[in-house]
Amino acid sequence: MSALPNALVAQSGGPTTVINSSACGVIQAAVRSGKIGKIFGANHGILGVLREELFDITAEKPETIEALKQTPAAAIGSCRYKLKTLDKSRADYERIIEVLKAHSIRYFFYAGGNDSMDTADKVNHLAADSGYELTCMGIPKTIDNDLAFTDHCPGYGSVAKYVATCAMEAGRDTEAIYTTDTCTILEVMGRNAGWIAAAAGLASRSPEDAPHLIYLPEVPFTFEKFVRDVKEVVADFKRVFIVAGEGLKDAAGKYVTVDTGSFNRDSFGHVQLGGVAEMLKAVIEKEVGIKARFNKLGTNQRCAMHFASLTDVNEAYLCGQKAFEYALAGENGKMVTLIRNKGSKYNCSAGLAKLSDVANGEKKVPPEYINDRGNHITQALKDYVQPLAQGQAPITIGPDGLPVFMRFEKKFLAKKLADYE
Amino acid sequence: MSALPNALVAQSGGPTTVINSSACGVIQAAVRSGKIGKIFGANHGILGVLREELFDITAEKPETIEALKQTPAAAIGSCRYKLKTLDKSRADYERIIEVLKAHSIRYFFYAGGNDSMDTADKVNHLAADSGYELTCMGIPKTIDNDLAFTDHCPGYGSVAKYVATCAMEAGRDTEAIYTTDTCTILEVMGRNAGWIAAAAGLASRSPEDAPHLIYLPEVPFTFEKFVRDVKEVVADFKRVFIVAGEGLKDAAGKYVTVDTGSFNRDSFGHVQLGGVAEMLKAVIEKEVGIKARFNKLGTNQRCAMHFASLTDVNEAYLCGQKAFEYALAGENGKMVTLIRNKGSKYNCSAGLAKLSDVANGEKKVPPEYINDRGNHITQALKDYVQPLAQGQAPITIGPDGLPVFMRFEKKFLAKKLADYE
Repeated sequence: MSALPNALVAQSGGPTTVINSSACGVIQAAVRSGKIGKIFGANHGILGVLREELFDITAEKPETIEALKQTPAAAIGSCRYKLKTLDKSRADYERIIEVLKAHSIRYFFYAGGNDSMDTADKVNHLAADSGYELTCMGIPKTIDNDLAFTDHCPGYGSVAKYVATCAMEAGRDTEAIYTTDTCTILEVMGRNAGWIAAAAGLASRSPEDAPHLIYLPEVPFTFEKFVRDVKEVVADFKRVFIVAGEGLKDAAGKYVTVDTGSFNRDSFGHVQLGGVAEMLKAVIEKEVGIKARFNKLGTNQRCAMHFASLTDVNEAYLCGQKAFEYALAGENGKMVTLIRNKGSKYNCSAGLAKLSDVANGEKKVPPEYINDRGNHITQALKDYVQPLAQGQAPITIGPDGLPVFMRFEKKFLAKKLADYE
Repeated sequence: MSALPNALVAQSGGPTTVINSSACGVIQAAVRSGKIGKIFGANHGILGVLREELFDITAEKPETIEALKQTPAAAIGSCRYKLKTLDKSRADYERIIEVLKAHSIRYFFYAGGNDSMDTADKVNHLAADSGYELTCMGIPKTIDNDLAFTDHCPGYGSVAKYVATCAMEAGRDTEAIYTTDTCTILEVMGRNAGWIAAAAGLASRSPEDAPHLIYLPEVPFTFEKFVRDVKEVVADFKRVFIVAGEGLKDAAGKYVTVDTGSFNRDSFGHVQLGGVAEMLKAVIEKEVGIKARFNKLGTNQRCAMHFASLTDVNEAYLCGQKAFEYALAGENGKMVTLIRNKGSKYNCSAGLAKLSDVANGEKKVPPEYINDRGNHITQALKDYVQPLAQGQAPITIGPDGLPVFMRFEKKFLAKKLADYE
């Protein structure tokens, strides 16, 4: 038993509805294989590795592990700690290798976006350089859907389904009460890529349906055009429902609004955005002269387990499972990708891409998915997104009528190394 | 056939997830009775009556009417137009009677909150005074749950279920990523009564669960206590999840924050609130020194058909059905109420209250439902709310993976009267 290698699973960045499904896929595949000693979880991502805060997932109940598929956010714990280049953060990278060695970890599975793939890639190279046998595999995870080399990212299908449904529902609300509340703005996430805002466009099956206007970070935003667009829709439908991505930028690439608070950058150096909807509301009330209100789903859009896409949950699980299976088969330094197979019926297989390639890529919404006027989506976008939002993932409802989520007991391993800060 | 009286159904105020279920109850009961000629809908509530914009619901397809139970917001159309006293708005009231007469309407069913019950009551008296035989029945509707003389209001159970689930889900998000995003504030509706904020408390099954703190308009808000509360929770759990009602007031009864924009009052004279969450976020970042973010569900909380309470949908239908049946049996000037029957298994029957009584009542969250420290709820509140949030209302999913809602064709009646402004 003690001869078997151990595995480590870590989660990184903003939580999603299905990142736990990927963890479940890795863990259950590893247990089934019989080739792994213990599976550890890194408490709050790479921070947990640096701090040697590891817990034994193999000691958790099988039903707890199974319930990962019904639990949103990041049950192992996530963080936004960003490692820099090998030069600048060398101590951190060396500490990671040291912790992995101390606990005989030979497999490192890291679910995250491109920053995390970069970290996994660097850890992998440093391990190889130092002669420590290690397999590093990445699992795609981001609601932003901006990773290259994969058809789409686990997490996106669920946020697409939820945000489109919210647009549809709040759109009916505006339609019902437009005689006073004429405009509703739905602000959605998406720092640089407008995939989430675009997905809300699934709600408009006919021109009168919400959303009437969709603004993406990919299209330079101008107030003049915006006001014209709004006036035109109001003339046609007596109301207007707008979806705006939080990261709208002007032609110079400057964010249209930036939270200037003291906490306006996350630890990855990303600017924290806020206030796009408030700003658009003010512009509409002043320039168009109609009452506007806004809904900001915030983190609720990325953890809406109660309405998750079954396709998304299944694909997230597949990515985790395949990450393990590929690793066992000898692959290393790769991220699992989703490949959309040809054919009339939607179907995805798992593929692989180099961590270093993924780390440096970014996939924005391409021009053919955006209408000519730059204020809505095309049928091609719908054809791309619709299959990802299909099916209702099962949830368990408690006697109080609400969903039941799992929580790990997190039995931490005794530390073998000195503290590290 | 032409001898049979006609009926009018109107919807008022902010939409809810289940106000259409009540309309369905009235309409189907009226059709079944065989005692009603035509059933008309008032396009956008009392405005539709004043403007003589009535459409023939009896001409709509039966499946469209049935699908009301799966459609949020207000399919007949709502508005916020408020009639004042008989003295001040006499012309409006007389116009209403005139329109009802012109279309041989003998039954008027009005779904709304206490302002609407007041309107229905005044129309009823004026009709009686002018010798026009009319039956006016009210149907309770408000997510705010603040109507007196009824155990609870249709619309509340669904918003309770949704908001509690959102708190539970976003709470897991904060728990996953608290090392950077330490605080999340969920702002919910509730101008004067904190029923919605209180319902979010269902999510906290254990002390570590969100929400850790709940602030209701019923408890005078002070920043000093708020900051102390937040620091204490962060010391215990390293994170804090806060639910705040939009209508928080200080000890003098002044709103803690008021949107001072030009559209800051609705047509009922209510102050339009906004910014409680933004304000709390700023206070926390400055005074506690942790990063905070906020989610503002806005209108999405009152139309979340995709996760509606089956109990709520059924009770809303019952209220509509009973409004018709009571009217046919000779009741007049009453609102249907819900009476919680004694016994270990939850069960409600329909009752009646005078429109004039309901118009002047307001039910706030009572002290026994709020904890001693004024920052959370008690078990008694949970016992009250839990049964209302039970069950998943059926929805129909289209080939695109999203819910399918109905929309009336709205074949408008030829106008018989002069225009009215």
